[in-house]
Amino acid sequence: MEEQRVPGRYGFEEIKNNHLEPWPNPHPDRDYVTHFEIPEFTCLCPRSGFPDFATIVIDYVPDGYVVELKSLKLYINAYRDRQISHESAANTILNDLVELLKPRWMRVVGDYTVRGNIKTIVFADYAQPDYQGPRPDYRRYLPTGM
Amino acid sequence: MEEQRVPGRYGFEEIKNNHLEPWPNPHPDRDYVTHFEIPEFTCLCPRSGFPDFATIVIDYVPDGYVVELKSLKLYINAYRDRQISHESAANTILNDLVELLKPRWMRVVGDYTVRGNIKTIVFADYAQPDYQGPRPDYRRYLPTGM
Amino acid sequence: MEEQRVPGRYGFEEIKNNHLEPWPNPHPDRDYVTHFEIPEFTCLCPRSGFPDFATIVIDYVPDGYVVELKSLKLYINAYRDRQISHESAANTILNDLVELLKPRWMRVVGDYTVRGNIKTIVFADYAQPDYQGPRPDYRRYLPTGM
Amino acid sequence: MEEQRVPGRYGFEEIKNNHLEPWPNPHPDRDYVTHFEIPEFTCLCPRSGFPDFATIVIDYVPDGYVVELKSLKLYINAYRDRQISHESAANTILNDLVELLKPRWMRVVGDYTVRGNIKTIVFADYAQPDYQGPRPDYRRYLPTGM
Amino acid sequence: MEEQRVPGRYGFEEIKNNHLEPWPNPHPDRDYVTHFEIPEFTCLCPRSGFPDFATIVIDYVPDGYVVELKSLKLYINAYRDRQISHESAANTILNDLVELLKPRWMRVVGDYTVRGNIKTIVFADYAQPDYQGPRPDYRRYLPTGM
Amino acid sequence: MEEQRVPGRYGFEEIKNNHLEPWPNPHPDRDYVTHFEIPEFTCLCPRSGFPDFATIVIDYVPDGYVVELKSLKLYINAYRDRQISHESAANTILNDLVELLKPRWMRVVGDYTVRGNIKTIVFADYAQPDYQGPRPDYRRYLPTGM
Amino acid sequence: MEEQRVPGRYGFEEIKNNHLEPWPNPHPDRDYVTHFEIPEFTCLCPRSGFPDFATIVIDYVPDGYVVELKSLKLYINAYRDRQISHESAANTILNDLVELLKPRWMRVVGDYTVRGNIKTIVFADYAQPDYQGPRPDYRRYLPTGM
Amino acid sequence: MEEQRVPGRYGFEEIKNNHLEPWPNPHPDRDYVTHFEIPEFTCLCPRSGFPDFATIVIDYVPDGYVVELKSLKLYINAYRDRQISHESAANTILNDLVELLKPRWMRVVGDYTVRGNIKTIVFADYAQPDYQGPRPDYRRYLPTGM
Amino acid sequence: MEEQRVPGRYGFEEIKNNHLEPWPNPHPDRDYVTHFEIPEFTCLCPRSGFPDFATIVIDYVPDGYVVELKSLKLYINAYRDRQISHESAANTILNDLVELLKPRWMRVVGDYTVRGNIKTIVFADYAQPDYQGPRPDYRRYLPTGM
Amino acid sequence: MEEQRVPGRYGFEEIKNNHLEPWPNPHPDRDYVTHFEIPEFTCLCPRSGFPDFATIVIDYVPDGYVVELKSLKLYINAYRDRQISHESAANTILNDLVELLKPRWMRVVGDYTVRGNIKTIVFADYAQPDYQGPRPDYRRYLPTGM
Ligand SMILES: [Ca+2]
Ligand SMILES: [Ca+2]
Ligand SMILES: [Ca+2]
Ligand SMILES: [Ca+2]
Ligand SMILES: [Ca+2]
Ligand SMILES: [Ca+2]
Ligand SMILES: [Ca+2]
Ligand SMILES: [Ca+2]
Ligand SMILES: [Ca+2]
Ligand SMILES: [Ca+2]
Ligand SMILES: [Ca+2]
Ligand SMILES: [Ca+2]
Ligand SMILES: [Ca+2]
Ligand SMILES: [Ca+2]
Ligand SMILES: [Ca+2]
Ligand SMILES: [Ca+2]
Repeated sequence: MEEQRVPGRYGFEEIKNNHLEPWPNPHPDRDYVTHFEIPEFTCLCPRSGFPDFATIVIDYVPDGYVVELKSLKLYINAYRDRQISHESAANTILNDLVELLKPRWMRVVGDYTVRGNIKTIVFADYAQPDYQGPRPDYRRYLPTGM
Repeated sequence: MEEQRVPGRYGFEEIKNNHLEPWPNPHPDRDYVTHFEIPEFTCLCPRSGFPDFATIVIDYVPDGYVVELKSLKLYINAYRDRQISHESAANTILNDLVELLKPRWMRVVGDYTVRGNIKTIVFADYAQPDYQGPRPDYRRYLPTGM
Repeated sequence: MEEQRVPGRYGFEEIKNNHLEPWPNPHPDRDYVTHFEIPEFTCLCPRSGFPDFATIVIDYVPDGYVVELKSLKLYINAYRDRQISHESAANTILNDLVELLKPRWMRVVGDYTVRGNIKTIVFADYAQPDYQGPRPDYRRYLPTGM
Repeated sequence: MEEQRVPGRYGFEEIKNNHLEPWPNPHPDRDYVTHFEIPEFTCLCPRSGFPDFATIVIDYVPDGYVVELKSLKLYINAYRDRQISHESAANTILNDLVELLKPRWMRVVGDYTVRGNIKTIVFADYAQPDYQGPRPDYRRYLPTGM
Repeated sequence: MEEQRVPGRYGFEEIKNNHLEPWPNPHPDRDYVTHFEIPEFTCLCPRSGFPDFATIVIDYVPDGYVVELKSLKLYINAYRDRQISHESAANTILNDLVELLKPRWMRVVGDYTVRGNIKTIVFADYAQPDYQGPRPDYRRYLPTGM
Repeated sequence: MEEQRVPGRYGFEEIKNNHLEPWPNPHPDRDYVTHFEIPEFTCLCPRSGFPDFATIVIDYVPDGYVVELKSLKLYINAYRDRQISHESAANTILNDLVELLKPRWMRVVGDYTVRGNIKTIVFADYAQPDYQGPRPDYRRYLPTGM
Repeated sequence: MEEQRVPGRYGFEEIKNNHLEPWPNPHPDRDYVTHFEIPEFTCLCPRSGFPDFATIVIDYVPDGYVVELKSLKLYINAYRDRQISHESAANTILNDLVELLKPRWMRVVGDYTVRGNIKTIVFADYAQPDYQGPRPDYRRYLPTGM
Repeated sequence: MEEQRVPGRYGFEEIKNNHLEPWPNPHPDRDYVTHFEIPEFTCLCPRSGFPDFATIVIDYVPDGYVVELKSLKLYINAYRDRQISHESAANTILNDLVELLKPRWMRVVGDYTVRGNIKTIVFADYAQPDYQGPRPDYRRYLPTGM
Repeated sequence: MEEQRVPGRYGFEEIKNNHLEPWPNPHPDRDYVTHFEIPEFTCLCPRSGFPDFATIVIDYVPDGYVVELKSLKLYINAYRDRQISHESAANTILNDLVELLKPRWMRVVGDYTVRGNIKTIVFADYAQPDYQGPRPDYRRYLPTGM
Repeated sequence: MEEQRVPGRYGFEEIKNNHLEPWPNPHPDRDYVTHFEIPEFTCLCPRSGFPDFATIVIDYVPDGYVVELKSLKLYINAYRDRQISHESAANTILNDLVELLKPRWMRVVGDYTVRGNIKTIVFADYAQPDYQGPRPDYRRYLPTGM
C-alpha cells in the first residue's frame, strides 16, 4: 500500500539545478590526499537502456580548490537517467572534476557490478605535468557488494 | 566523451511492458525452498524524491507455480522511478508475488543502504493457514555493501 | 587552519527541538519486522564524564504506528551530552520507544566499544502480553568497529 | 531509569585542562615507526553543527620526542564540541603534533564515516627536509566500522 | 599454442560409463550426518543453452547405504551438457540419490551463480516418515564465489 | 521432473558464431586501465578430458581499441569443450586479445580451482616496447571460491 | 633501553586489594541481558606453570544486582599468577559471580588459545530454578585471535 | 642441506606408547560443555594409501571424567599411518572416547579437506538415554583452511 | 568399525617411485608467472619426531621447462616421514626445483602451523643472474588455517 | 573448585634459566627470510603496573646464525613481570636479537592491544650497512585480536 502523504519533489529539483561547487583549499601548502567512496552510482546501459550500478571512487590531491561534498553527491545522482558506457563514465567524471578543480593529481575509478557474468572496473587518472606528490594505491574502505 | 552510437531503447520497452510470469511448479509434491537475492533495487524516497537503494531478498516455498526469473528482474527494475517508503516496498512486493503465485510460504526482505546514518531492513512474510513446511532463517549469500 | 565561513547552527536547533514522531503503520494487518542499526551513538560516562560510544540496534514489529526515521536520528543525537550507564541507555531507549509506538514486539541493543579492556553489550526487549509473531535473533548487518 | 549516584565530572576537567605532553624518545638512534589508531574521534560539522565521526590514524618516526599516550587521548576528546571540516581536522592535528614533537616523519589520516552516501578519508603527511627513513603504506589494524 | 601431446580421453569414458555406487553403511546403528560440498557443478540453461554454474551441497543421514565418493563426482560431472532448470536440478539430484540410498534424511541444495543480476538457491529435502534424527541447518564450509 | 518446454538452442549458436569484437577507444588520449573478472571459465584437462574450472582476470590499457563485453563473454564460453593446459589457456587468451586490440599493456591471469590438492594460478602479460603507463598489481575484487 | 622514570605500582595495589562489587540493578522489572567480552585473561598452567591465555565471555540476566565493571576487570587481572585448569577457570568465575550477584541466568565461557595444537573452549551456565527468560546463543563480537 | 644433528625420536615413542587418559571431572555437579578443535589430523585413504587431512572437532559434556589433553593429542597423532575412511574415523573416535569417558553427551566431527573436488564433513554424536543438558550447534572457532 | 575391504596400496607405490618431471615450456618467449599453493605438506620435527604441518607456496617464471603437476604432488607427499627443520624444508624444495627446471626466477615459501605458541614462515628465492622479469609479492589465494 | 594435584613448577624454572640460543644457519649462502608471529606477549605498564598485551612479529634474514625456537619462546615469556613501555619493548627485543645473531636484516614489531581507546604498534628494524637483500612489507598471517 503506497504512502498516503503527497510525495515530496525537492530532491528532483536539487539534483536538476545542481552545479559542482569548488571551495578554496584550506591547506594549499601541503599535498594532502582526499578519498571519496560513492557506492550508489547508477546510470543506463548505452546499448540497451537497462540500469547499470557502480561504486565511484575518487582520490585527489587538491591545488587551489577542494570540491564541496553535497554538490558532488548531487552531480553523481544526475547520472540516473543518462546512457553512458563503463569506460566513458569514469573518464567523463575525471574530465569534469579536473576542469573544475585543476587538482595536482586525481584518480577516478568506476567499479561496476557484474554484467553478463563479467565484473568490470575502470581506472582513469590525471596529474599536473610537474607533479611529484603522493599517488596512493587504489583501495576500497567500505564493504563492497558484487 | 559520450558514445557516438545511437543509444538502444529495448531495455526501457521490456521493463515498461513486463508482467510477472507464473510457470507451473516442476516439483509440486515437495516443499522445496527457492531463495532469490536481488542486490540492484532502487526507488525514490517518498519525502524527498532522492534515490534509495536496497537489496531485495525473497525466500518462498512454491505451491502450484514458480515465478519466471526474467519477469521478476524486470518487475524489480520498474521501481526505479517510483516513490515508495522502506516499509511499503517490502510489503508491496510480498503482496504482488503472493497474489500471483499463491505460495505455501514466502518472505520478502528489503535491506536498505544507510540513510541519515541509520541502516534499515524490513522483513515481511506470508504463509498459507495450514502450512507446516520449512521456514529457513533469513541469510544473505552475496557479499553485502552498506 | 579552521573554516573561514561562519559555522552553521541549524543542526543544534533541530536536535534540541526534536520529538520522536509516530507515523501510522502502512501495513497494520501483517507482523513485519523493521531493523534499525545506528552506529553513531555517543553519550557520557556517569562516573567520569568521559565519552562513551556504541551502536544502537533496534528491531520491532509495529502495531498501530511506525517511528519516523529523521526524528529517531535526532533523538539518538540528543544523548551526546547526557551522562547515562551502559545498562540504562538500552533500557531507557526501549522505554521511550515502547511508550511512543506501543509496538507488538521490540528489542533495543546497546553495543558499546571497549572500556577497561572489556566489551559490553546490553539487550533489552518488550512484547505485548499475547504476542505470537516473529522474534528474530540479534544480528548486525553493518561492518562493526570495536 | 537514570543513575541515582551523583554523575562524576573528573573526565570534563581532565579533557579541558589537558596539554599534549612530549616525552624524551627512549631510542633516538633508530628510525622506528609508531602507529596510533584512535577510532573514537567525534567533532561537529562546520555547515550544520550535526555530529561527525571518524577514526584518526597517526604514523610517525619520532626524533627527540615521543607523545605521551594519555595526553594524546585527551587532546582528541577535546574535539567533541569543535566545528571543523574533514580536510581541516587531519591537517590541524598534523600541524599541532609536528609543532610539539618535531618528528622526522609523520602522517595523520582522518577516516570519516559516511555522510550524504559518501565515505571521506583525508591523508596529510610531513617529513624533515633530509628525511630518508621508512614511510609505511597506510593501513588499518583495527576492525573498521562504516 | 595448444598442447602438442595427444589429448587423453579417459575422463570422458569414466563420466559416460559411471553409475552412482552404494556402499554398505559402516555404522548403521547411529544417525550420523555426512556433508558434501561440490563447487564445480555446471549444466546448460533450458531456455538458452548458455552455461549455468552452481555449488551442490548434500547433507544426509545414511540408513543401509553410503554413496561412494568417486561415483558421486562422476554423476555430477555428467550434468555438463544437460539442459535443466535451477528448481529441477536440486530436486532431480535428490530424487536420484534417495532412490539409490533410501537415506533416513537428505537435503540437496543448488546454489547458483548470479544470472540476470539475481542470485538463486534451491533447497530440497526428504525424510523417512518416522525420522526423528538430526536435521542440521544449511551451512557452507568452503569459501563461496558469487 | 525435467522442463516440459522444448529447450532453447540460441545460446549454442551465439557461442559458436561469435568473434571477439573491437570497438574504437572512446578516450585514446589517456592511459586508463580496464579490469575484467570472469569467474565462470571452464575447459577440459588435456591429459584426462576431465573438466577444469578457473577465473580469468584481464587488466589492460587500451590503445586504439576496447573489447566489446558480450563478444568477450562468448569467446570465454567457447573454451567449454576445448582441451588446454593451465599455462596455455592464460597465454592463449593473452595472445588472442593482443592480436585483436594491440593494447598498450595487458595482463591475463588464469586462477584455477584446486586439482590434486594443489591450487594453480598463471600470470601472463604484454606491453608495447615503449610503454610507460600504469601496471596495477594483480587483485581480485569478487569473492573467490577455491 | 628501559624507562628512566621510577615504575609506578598503583596497578599492583588496585588488583591485590580489589573485591567484586555489586550495584543495584537499575531496571529490575525486565529480563535484559548484559554481555561482557574480556580478551585479556591470563593464568598459569597447573601442570607446568607456563602461561595460558584466554578470552572470558560472560552473558547474564541480572536480578537484584549488576556487577561494577572496574571491579570485574581487577578480579580477572588477579588470575595472572594463579595456577588453574581450563575447566576450573570457567566454572570458578561462574561460581564467584553467581554467589555475588544471584543472577536470574548467567553463562561464563573460557575461550583458550591453542595448546599442544588443540584449541579448547569451556562453557558453563547457571539459572534460577524457575527461570523462563532469554538464554542467547554463545557469540563473540570482538575480532578473535587464535 | 639437512640437519647435521642426530634427529630425535622421543616423539615416536610417546605416540606409540600413549593411552587416552581419563581425569576426574573437577565440576561434576554442572552440565558444562568442553570444545576441542584439532586442525592437524592426518590418516591414509583406505582405497589408495594416499594421505587424507582433516580437522577433528569434539564437543562433550563430561560426567565422571574429563579427557587429559596431552593424551588426546597423542591419540590423534597415532592415526598418521592408519588407513581409515571419512565416515569411520569420526565414528571410531566417538566410540573410543565414549567408551573411555562415558560422557553425558558428545559429538565428534571429521572436517576433511577437498578430495576429488568434493569437501566432506562427518558429524557423529552420542547422548546418555535420559540426557537433558545443552547440545550446542556445531561451530568452528579457528580459521579454517580448505 | 574399520573398512572390511582390503586397503589399497597403489598410493604408497606412486609416492615411493615418483620423480619430479620437467615438461617443455609451451610459451618460452614470455616471462609468465605460475603460482602453486600446496596446503597439505607434512613432515617430522628433527628434534622430536612429532609431526609438523605447513602450506608450501611456489611462484616461478619458467625458462625452458615447467614442472608436471602430478609429479610435484607426489614429491611433496614424500616428505611425510622425513625429519627436516622449518628453514631447511623451504630451502631444500627450492634447491631441488631449481636444479630440475633451471627457472628464470623462483620463490618457495614454507608457511608452518603454530608450534610452541609461535607461527613460523620461511621465504627462499632464486633468480638467474641477469633476470629482469616480474617478481610478484608473496600472497596466499586459498583460505589459510593456523 | 581448584586442582587437587600439586601444581607443577618446571615451567617457572625453564623460563627463569633460559638464554636465547643461536644455531648455525643451515643455508648461509642465500638471503632467505624467516617470519615469527608471537601472539602471547604480556608485560606490565611502566606507569601503573597494570598488564599490557601484544603480538610480537619478527622478520629477519639470518647471516651466520638462526635463533632456536624454544629459547625464543622462553625469552618472550620472561617479560611477564617486567615493567617496560610500548616503544622500548620492540626496540629492546630487536637489540637483544641483533646482538645475539648479527643478522643481515631484522624487523621487530610490537602490536599492542587497545589502551585508553588507542591501538598502538611499534616497528623497529636493523640492517647490516651494505645489506641489499629482501625487506618484505610488514604483514600478519595469524587472525588478529584487538
Ligand atoms: Ca600548483
Ligand atoms: Ca528516470
Ligand atoms: Ca496447497
Ligand atoms: Ca494489536
Ligand atoms: Ca634529527
Ligand atoms: Ca557538548
Ligand atoms: Ca599459444
Ligand atoms: Ca531404517
Ligand atoms: Ca525429475
Ligand atoms: Ca600508441
Ligand atoms: Ca527474582
Ligand atoms: Ca550421570
Ligand atoms: Ca634463459
Ligand atoms: Ca609413516
Ligand atoms: Ca655477512
Ligand atoms: Ca607475577
